[in-house]
Amino acid sequence: MSVVQDQDLALLVDTRNKAHLVRVRSGQRFETHHGFIAYDAIIGQPWGSIIPSSLGHPYLVVQPSTADLITHIKRNSQVIFPKDSAYILMRINAKPGARVLESGCGSGGLTLALATAVMPTGHVYSQEIREDFIALARRNMERVGLEQYVTFIHGDSTQGFKVEGKVDAVFLDMPEPETCVSQAREVLKDGGFFGALVPTTNQVVNLLRALERAAFGLIDVEEILIRRYKPVADRLRPQDRMIAHTGFLIFARAVVKPYHLPIGACEANDDEEEAFPGEA
Amino acid sequence: MSVVQDQDLALLVDTRNKAHLVRVRSGQRFETHHGFIAYDAIIGQPWGSIIPSSLGHPYLVVQPSTADLITHIKRNSQVIFPKDSAYILMRINAKPGARVLESGCGSGGLTLALATAVMPTGHVYSQEIREDFIALARRNMERVGLEQYVTFIHGDSTQGFKVEGKVDAVFLDMPEPETCVSQAREVLKDGGFFGALVPTTNQVVNLLRALERAAFGLIDVEEILIRRYKPVADRLRPQDRMIAHTGFLIFARAVVKPYHLPIGACEANDDEEEAFPGEA
Amino acid sequence: MSVVQDQDLALLVDTRNKAHLVRVRSGQRFETHHGFIAYDAIIGQPWGSIIPSSLGHPYLVVQPSTADLITHIKRNSQVIFPKDSAYILMRINAKPGARVLESGCGSGGLTLALATAVMPTGHVYSQEIREDFIALARRNMERVGLEQYVTFIHGDSTQGFKVEGKVDAVFLDMPEPETCVSQAREVLKDGGFFGALVPTTNQVVNLLRALERAAFGLIDVEEILIRRYKPVADRLRPQDRMIAHTGFLIFARAVVKPYHLPIGACEANDDEEEAFPGEA
Amino acid sequence: MSVVQDQDLALLVDTRNKAHLVRVRSGQRFETHHGFIAYDAIIGQPWGSIIPSSLGHPYLVVQPSTADLITHIKRNSQVIFPKDSAYILMRINAKPGARVLESGCGSGGLTLALATAVMPTGHVYSQEIREDFIALARRNMERVGLEQYVTFIHGDSTQGFKVEGKVDAVFLDMPEPETCVSQAREVLKDGGFFGALVPTTNQVVNLLRALERAAFGLIDVEEILIRRYKPVADRLRPQDRMIAHTGFLIFARAVVKPYHLPIGACEANDDEEEAFPGEA
Repeated sequence: MSVVQDQDLALLVDTRNKAHLVRVRSGQRFETHHGFIAYDAIIGQPWGSIIPSSLGHPYLVVQPSTADLITHIKRNSQVIFPKDSAYILMRINAKPGARVLESGCGSGGLTLALATAVMPTGHVYSQEIREDFIALARRNMERVGLEQYVTFIHGDSTQGFKVEGKVDAVFLDMPEPETCVSQAREVLKDGGFFGALVPTTNQVVNLLRALERAAFGLIDVEEILIRRYKPVADRLRPQDRMIAHTGFLIFARAVVKPYHLPIGACEANDDEEEAFPGEA
Repeated sequence: MSVVQDQDLALLVDTRNKAHLVRVRSGQRFETHHGFIAYDAIIGQPWGSIIPSSLGHPYLVVQPSTADLITHIKRNSQVIFPKDSAYILMRINAKPGARVLESGCGSGGLTLALATAVMPTGHVYSQEIREDFIALARRNMERVGLEQYVTFIHGDSTQGFKVEGKVDAVFLDMPEPETCVSQAREVLKDGGFFGALVPTTNQVVNLLRALERAAFGLIDVEEILIRRYKPVADRLRPQDRMIAHTGFLIFARAVVKPYHLPIGACEANDDEEEAFPGEA
Repeated sequence: MSVVQDQDLALLVDTRNKAHLVRVRSGQRFETHHGFIAYDAIIGQPWGSIIPSSLGHPYLVVQPSTADLITHIKRNSQVIFPKDSAYILMRINAKPGARVLESGCGSGGLTLALATAVMPTGHVYSQEIREDFIALARRNMERVGLEQYVTFIHGDSTQGFKVEGKVDAVFLDMPEPETCVSQAREVLKDGGFFGALVPTTNQVVNLLRALERAAFGLIDVEEILIRRYKPVADRLRPQDRMIAHTGFLIFARAVVKPYHLPIGACEANDDEEEAFPGEA
Repeated sequence: MSVVQDQDLALLVDTRNKAHLVRVRSGQRFETHHGFIAYDAIIGQPWGSIIPSSLGHPYLVVQPSTADLITHIKRNSQVIFPKDSAYILMRINAKPGARVLESGCGSGGLTLALATAVMPTGHVYSQEIREDFIALARRNMERVGLEQYVTFIHGDSTQGFKVEGKVDAVFLDMPEPETCVSQAREVLKDGGFFGALVPTTNQVVNLLRALERAAFGLIDVEEILIRRYKPVADRLRPQDRMIAHTGFLIFARAVVKPYHLPIGACEANDDEEEAFPGEA
């Protein structure tokens, strides 16, 4: 529907670009230090409308994107940024129909991105040692209506992953992912996708050593940086400051023994003539 | 299936990480300057196997990811890099079920990423003025089995977009996107997602002027940079060289008049206490 | 001298790395919210000593470097960052003995760096339209003892530079440097060095057009970025945030007509065999 | 002099920006695959002139800057890039009059930059274990006329630095700088400047551990990145590729025991009111 309805999730954005994620509830209102907005004034309006607060401050009302939801869910810890989540989805091939395992769940930011990417036919398994984290992440999935695509598993990942059957991809977001590499390989389909995020170079070194010992190949270590500009036509320039580091991303593919591991990522061939050889 | 089958697409990667995208065909073989591999030697093997060529060179056989497909499809022009494609999908909210319009189609690299993201219930419309581009992009969609999710439209986008009904998102990948901004707004649902990619700052300036004149808000200009590391545990260091620029990404949301446009992107509130106010 | 003396400039750094630039004055004291330090407790101590404040907070006492002085001088405007100053000195060849002209002077941050680089036999000319800026910059030069190497010139640079004789290098740090390009060429020695700093891409475009019309070649547009790490051996990682943009740097060489301009910077030859041909 | 003279060093730059560093020698000529240029055709011309080769290809003739000399000297190894050299000079406070020690000398690229920065009253000591490296670096200093400002010392730096008296700054450019940290402290003046360059994160970790054990403070780990643009006014955009990594730079100050080390670099105080307290 292209008009706002009761019980919708909405993003309200003020003129200083501060965004608020709310549930639209008939009869209630959104309170801010710029006055309030009665949700009934929003219901029935087209998405993208500008609604004034009781003190005359304009608010833009839009549907939240997946990136907005990741940014605005309730948190108990740092969520994985949209720039990283987006790239992780691409690199572990989290597409509709995929079965993906993550460990741990954090506040459910990446869980949300994964569930959105693999639905309606895929599924996300999220194993986590802390029950309070699972509780928050599950509540966040319910709020955004994705709970049917996610199974939370309470367990210590160093003891193995309690998922039924093999998965297409595993992503580790935990302090010592090197302790779970062989366990990840066990639940991964042959050729499956492995990913991890760690903040320090020391952790990258430890994880590389574990991957080299286990049956993984095509290992990549990458960082995603985003540079934002002030969107002013007459004075176009980068923002003064930027997020300089969120984490190192490590990707690999599950290989089958006996293997001689190619180190590093595959690169496109300069001469692509042979792509699809034999096809017209 | 976790073993290679006849007619599968496969990525063959040598020890120097050169990757070749091939169609596995029983009775035929993959020729390389390292000798050949008979596809029958691959068929029935688990994905992730290492197969020696006739001259003894090992090749890793894995299923191509969407990123691999983007990188290896036949091209008539520069494709949008996976790092950019991944972020575009996130920012224009291309998720299962979405209806997305792009213009133009190039070789179909972004088309492929969009179709994979919105299937099975969504759809991609790809309008392009050059018939030869459409022919190549369509053939690439057929090769990867995504043709049912994409409708190619032959047409000049400055004359309007010939898509039935409104779409959730529009992405412009063309030299003068500022000439199609109002046309894009017309086919976008209220509150819908707009995106574009241009290589030069002059083009960004022109596009910003067009967006400010049309009904768009929450305008963002961004670049995605990827920094890769040599994945060697004892000598971890960034690669010597990197891709320094592929393009500027511009995003916006379709707003409804009368409007007073907030400039720039929405940012997370520092105080997230009010997220989902009223919910337990 | 390697011990602190009365009237020395000193940098006092607390355990949170907050630095204070002070003049050591016998009989007086440095006041801070961590208590005070009597300068007489510092005088006679070796540089690099740790001195406790009256409340027991340790302060490291070091001689300020040129970078420290740039960062800590009294300002009326943004100073050019040390990362940019350092690179400017290298690119405009500001070495001992050079005669360098800058316009305008700002608070004297770059003036200070230039004077330190060209002394004792070189000289800096600094032309500026605002008398209050000259007054502050001159006072800053006196404080750091560099006044004898700098001549401030009060004048509108669009009307020409009032320097005696030709200079080896010109640096423009002003909002519209394109209005002073031909004037800069007039006072530059043939083959001399030109530099400028501007914050926006629009200004870069304007300056490039002016340089292409005037007698300049080997034009370069560059940005210097600095990425800092948390210096912790067990958890080495980049800082979370960084300064993402201070300005675009434009460099060029003064050429002699008739000329056919090579665009862009010179690059090292891949084959350096011919360097110094004919020398043993 | 502003005209080219016999025996001058000159940079000849072709229209594709390939630069050649030559010694101008009356009676001889510069040979290139674009024909030749007789040096007598250059002698007497103003710097910045465009001189055609025998085949009509134009060459721009300019005096080499220090950055040009670093880039074009004869090499036996990778030289420290101008972007890094420039920042090192600033951070170790290599200004006229300073006494600076480096180890090792490589091909003399940083030696050249240091000598140019500290002359005429300062001096550079360059200790190196390999005699062939010293021979090349010394010859390079002679070629550029800086030999009087540099003393080469043949020796194993792990056995101590054989410099007379204390120095203002030490810079280590060697594979295992952590083995020479205490030796560097011994020859550094109290409060003096320490710097080092290493390519890998593992080396940074080792060096940080050594610095924390020795009498050093204000430790910083940084990288300098340079982003270059295509200098075309109508299509301003970053270059497609860039040098992504040359090395990590580590800086510190020599402190005096007993000390409690502030970790990390000093930062400017937000409230600069107290700068130069007590001065008008």
